Amino acid sequence: MGKLVIVGTLAFDAIETPFGKTDKILGGAATFIGLAASQFRIDSAAVSIVGDDFPQDYLDLLTSRGVNIDGVEIVEGGKTFFWSGRYHNDMNSRDTLVTELNTLADFNPVVPEGYRNSDVVMLGNLHPITQMSVLEQMTTTPNMVILDTMNFWMDNALEDLHNVMKYIDVITINDEEARQLTGEYSLVTAAQKIHEMGPQFVVIKKGEHGALLFNEDNVFYAPALPLREVFDPTGAGDTFAGGFAGYLAKTGDYSFENLKTAVIYGSTLASFCVEKFGTERMKNLSAADIRKRLDQFKSLTQFDIKLT
Amino acid sequence: MGKLVIVGTLAFDAIETPFGKTDKILGGAATFIGLAASQFRIDSAAVSIVGDDFPQDYLDLLTSRGVNIDGVEIVEGGKTFFWSGRYHNDMNSRDTLVTELNTLADFNPVVPEGYRNSDVVMLGNLHPITQMSVLEQMTTTPNMVILDTMNFWMDNALEDLHNVMKYIDVITINDEEARQLTGEYSLVTAAQKIHEMGPQFVVIKKGEHGALLFNEDNVFYAPALPLREVFDPTGAGDTFAGGFAGYLAKTGDYSFENLKTAVIYGSTLASFCVEKFGTERMKNLSAADIRKRLDQFKSLTQFDIKLT
Repeated sequence: MGKLVIVGTLAFDAIETPFGKTDKILGGAATFIGLAASQFRIDSAAVSIVGDDFPQDYLDLLTSRGVNIDGVEIVEGGKTFFWSGRYHNDMNSRDTLVTELNTLADFNPVVPEGYRNSDVVMLGNLHPITQMSVLEQMTTTPNMVILDTMNFWMDNALEDLHNVMKYIDVITINDEEARQLTGEYSLVTAAQKIHEMGPQFVVIKKGEHGALLFNEDNVFYAPALPLREVFDPTGAGDTFAGGFAGYLAKTGDYSFENLKTAVIYGSTLASFCVEKFGTERMKNLSAADIRKRLDQFKSLTQFDIKLT
Repeated sequence: MGKLVIVGTLAFDAIETPFGKTDKILGGAATFIGLAASQFRIDSAAVSIVGDDFPQDYLDLLTSRGVNIDGVEIVEGGKTFFWSGRYHNDMNSRDTLVTELNTLADFNPVVPEGYRNSDVVMLGNLHPITQMSVLEQMTTTPNMVILDTMNFWMDNALEDLHNVMKYIDVITINDEEARQLTGEYSLVTAAQKIHEMGPQFVVIKKGEHGALLFNEDNVFYAPALPLREVFDPTGAGDTFAGGFAGYLAKTGDYSFENLKTAVIYGSTLASFCVEKFGTERMKNLSAADIRKRLDQFKSLTQFDIKLT
């Protein structure tokens, strides 16, 4: 069983969907990644920054799940990163209403000594320079470095993004971002160009249409589970990444075949995340819930070829 | 091995894509359905109408593949249905440039005597009254009636569409059409409402995102094969339907499990169709080509669950 280090935000989110709205609730990439990865009962640590307005309860939630928080800096008198957004009726697009960086503006991640030899590094969506600084602190070469990013960094820090991409094994981005990064409409061609930028594995997330995993000439398609309703998509991508990273750290098998299963675990956990606001569903998830949904994924995609 | 009767257009198409444009070439739903279904070497017949401008070569192509054309009416001095369209750069949307109904305006399908007891009836996209008139000619209840339709009939003949839907087993429509027909955004809820309108099985086509098969509480997700390029999407939906219907007629097994495989055969054949203009690729397709691509579909979606 391997060690996992997670870098990403701990945040307050305020969310509006067609189903309702929330006050400031627990959010942030490191939160969703940590909660998802903790399902595998691995040794993990979150590296992040918050203000002293961040409730102790939220930190306790992570530690109660076995996520080490020695690498979470608490800034006295500082305010925690805050994001607010409103989802459209189709739940596939959203408007950002507020982004207050607060303490995140001065985030210099420090990986705790005991996690500098982690097997798996999960770089949540942050400035690529911040992501790079985490890699520079590793004392042994990780077996797998996974990077999540978004169009904002392609627009504003493309050179830095290209630099960190040389040092990673897996990138997770959505379909539109893959197209933006490469100028290619075909996701097959886009994945090939992204391989050439560094990562051996490319995960392209397509929301309700599932996710694609590319490795050289191999491709794997994990559908999203068709759901009666998506209540709140916030954190689904991070939950996917956390399930993916946590499963790899747990198994220590970095073959394409095992990465396929990691994608299924990520998709499975993400399918729970969207059922309630914020982290609500992820906090109350049993092994039996997960087992049952994995079986649903299996029956969703498995078929027999009988003739010709 | 069952008999299949196909009703649909035989047409001239003129197509513009970012890769080039064609003069008037062979097109039409019955053409694509017939060519796809003929891969299963079943006893099939096309019911359609053309003018005397329709080349004998095009009719010979169908008969050479074992598609009976006794039900194709040739109108002396009439002109064949003509459609012209231009695809946008993303190949997911298109503008219709010309629609000339010509002889299709007076189409009264007559099912040849020997096919009125067919096991499978494939109703290609036509006015729902025309589709209904084919069902009324059947002398035995078919094992499976499959109906393809489009938003045009929802806008212009909704009551007639609802009527024919009571007599069918499978409907194939795209995701936007499923939403239009039901007023539901969630495809799970939409499929449930469509079940209540008649068909036991609902196939929702999502283009490059694959296809969903619903039956009561069961759902199956067939991805589309990720392709380096889509050359011409014309006929992909009809080729899917033809593969689906042909496989069912061949096997005579109408269980949900076997319909899953039928969806995979449909997707496989459709993935060839889009590689060249019009019917070009479908005319030159070997059993080995199909076998190889079925294996690709298998490796695209199959995975192992190893823990928890």
